[in-house]
Amino acid sequence: MGLRRIALVGSTGSIGTSTLEVVRAHPERFSIDCLVAGRRGDVLAEQVRSFRPRVAAVSDAAGFEALCKGLGVSPATARWNDTELVCGDDAIVHVIRESRADVVVAAVVGMAGLSGVLAAIDSGKDIALANKESLVVGGELVMERARAAGVSIIPVDSEHSALFQVLQGTQEEDLESVILTASGGPFLHTPISEFSAITPERALKHPKWSMGAKISIDSATMMNKALEVIEARWLFNVPSKRIEVIIHPQSIIHSMIRLVDGTVLAQLSIPDMKGPIAYALTYPNERARGVMERLDFTKVTELTFLPVDDQKFPGLRRAKECLEGANGACAVLNTANEVAVELFLNKALAFESIHRLIGDSLEKFGSRSYQDAKELFSLTDEVSVWARQHATSIRT
Amino acid sequence: MGLRRIALVGSTGSIGTSTLEVVRAHPERFSIDCLVAGRRGDVLAEQVRSFRPRVAAVSDAAGFEALCKGLGVSPATARWNDTELVCGDDAIVHVIRESRADVVVAAVVGMAGLSGVLAAIDSGKDIALANKESLVVGGELVMERARAAGVSIIPVDSEHSALFQVLQGTQEEDLESVILTASGGPFLHTPISEFSAITPERALKHPKWSMGAKISIDSATMMNKALEVIEARWLFNVPSKRIEVIIHPQSIIHSMIRLVDGTVLAQLSIPDMKGPIAYALTYPNERARGVMERLDFTKVTELTFLPVDDQKFPGLRRAKECLEGANGACAVLNTANEVAVELFLNKALAFESIHRLIGDSLEKFGSRSYQDAKELFSLTDEVSVWARQHATSIRT
Repeated sequence: MGLRRIALVGSTGSIGTSTLEVVRAHPERFSIDCLVAGRRGDVLAEQVRSFRPRVAAVSDAAGFEALCKGLGVSPATARWNDTELVCGDDAIVHVIRESRADVVVAAVVGMAGLSGVLAAIDSGKDIALANKESLVVGGELVMERARAAGVSIIPVDSEHSALFQVLQGTQEEDLESVILTASGGPFLHTPISEFSAITPERALKHPKWSMGAKISIDSATMMNKALEVIEARWLFNVPSKRIEVIIHPQSIIHSMIRLVDGTVLAQLSIPDMKGPIAYALTYPNERARGVMERLDFTKVTELTFLPVDDQKFPGLRRAKECLEGANGACAVLNTANEVAVELFLNKALAFESIHRLIGDSLEKFGSRSYQDAKELFSLTDEVSVWARQHATSIRT
Repeated sequence: MGLRRIALVGSTGSIGTSTLEVVRAHPERFSIDCLVAGRRGDVLAEQVRSFRPRVAAVSDAAGFEALCKGLGVSPATARWNDTELVCGDDAIVHVIRESRADVVVAAVVGMAGLSGVLAAIDSGKDIALANKESLVVGGELVMERARAAGVSIIPVDSEHSALFQVLQGTQEEDLESVILTASGGPFLHTPISEFSAITPERALKHPKWSMGAKISIDSATMMNKALEVIEARWLFNVPSKRIEVIIHPQSIIHSMIRLVDGTVLAQLSIPDMKGPIAYALTYPNERARGVMERLDFTKVTELTFLPVDDQKFPGLRRAKECLEGANGACAVLNTANEVAVELFLNKALAFESIHRLIGDSLEKFGSRSYQDAKELFSLTDEVSVWARQHATSIRT
């Protein structure tokens, strides 16, 4: 059980910073090989000072300037002490491929993370996967390539980490279904009649924890759970009819599996992403100690469950329909959702129109198939353009 | 995965009859090699007609007569069709030793079950253990002999089955503690001031399920959970300070384990002993299908927890003290409890005096040690005689 070297892709986001907290708390277990960020070069500069990676990379040019400025070096030097500084998406893919990391943490938000995931797989590195969209869009492709490369994909989403953990002691033939739990988001108890009044500001305020903007809106629409259904299908190779979803507002049970004899196995903890992150980084070795606060059953005295309201949150049903349909359908669902969230955050689409834009996109493109990554990216581009255009006609 | 042959010891009790239900429902997985009962020869006769075992044995002479009468054969014949009929405790030990069973279900109630457990171990047969008292009284002895004989002991108590199941995918170094859940019994919400008015009739009425008389009273005093703490210590080799108990009135979560990173793993189901029985009989092969009713989270909508009241239920604290003390202490605790329950059921001891008789017995004998089975049985005999005598002085 030596030190595990980590390539952290998406280091300045919510999962990225939590990953660095885990690494900082367990220097005997983890070290940082490279840090990769999208835009926030100033934040990345601070991380580089703390963790002194072999390479630090940033996607866009302005971010690279901020990184160099933050480190007090000239962009032409492209080096700070022993750290090589790199800029641009192609360079990032190269950094991931050439990295000496044992595991790549894929913590980019959105389908933009797919190329990094494929680069990690193709270079034979295990993946701690926080980027669910890469599996939603290209699940078949990603899982096939991972199998071929002999690479493990360990989920970091708390629900999928829970499933992965309880599946450890379970024989495949004993599994009846997986049960994803859902917090229900901030509008669980808001009547659908009030959905038209929901502003981005309100939707961004999650009652329980702070997350990035994309995942906060996905939580509010429950599209997050829809994406997770698709992610579960690929990670665990279970057909959609064997994926259940139940609302569990306390978010203590992170997910469950149902076995053929009537047994249910569950994974519980205080909600804290450091748990699934540390698990993914340590697996299959022993767990890191004291990662999360202890779950105290004299304080957490009640766990409740309720069914999903399909009228308010039609995404779950749609995700299952997509899984039953053409292999491009899930990519269409995800692309339309990414466009809808962006437009909603920019006040160019009403909250209740997010599901409509997704539904309309599926009606138009839902039967499309793809053969390879190129056709897949061409499909998502087409959907993206169309959805942006179509949104202007349903803008309320 | 062939047919598993079962020797069922304690076939006419609650666990015994549930075991036969499991066998009846899965004739492709299980067959009965022998049936052993204590007294109820009439019930055993019915079971023999249904399951046609190779041997049927009964402990006492009157029971043997009832068995022969029920089968319409003379006691001198000692045979019904292909079934050999046997009488007496020594003969039972012989039957267990010579049985062709793959697994012995030890479902006798009380420490009377210990000799059968030891016979099964010594003849190299795996054990599905429902007889917790054998581990409470002779845990060290039983586990050592099982190790030496290379025999597996699979728990049938629902709590320990739950722990056994969630421990399947867990590395030893990841375990922080085990968390036994307790229903709290019928007097969870009864003030201690009303304990003096509790009659055997009231104590026997468990709010949730019907069990034998001994375990019903143990549930009412929570001595059942005290015995389970001791059982857990031996089954899973965890010290008493790493055994937690929490009251969970719905009895859906059957127990949990706490891991070093802050994760908790739990096993849930509808309360139904057929679940743990079938698990113990199938382990380590695939589970039997449809053993228990499906757990429906749209019906089971709430799981709650509360701490144990040590004033009302001092047994848990005492069990932990016994585990820290001399190796005879747990046998003293169990023996005093068995005597107290018998006297209470015969209206010769008040409900609130059960804990007092246990406490007084521990004060007198709690520091005793034993070296071998002979010394152990001599200790329990001595405690039993003394406790019966002493009870007359505290009779209220």
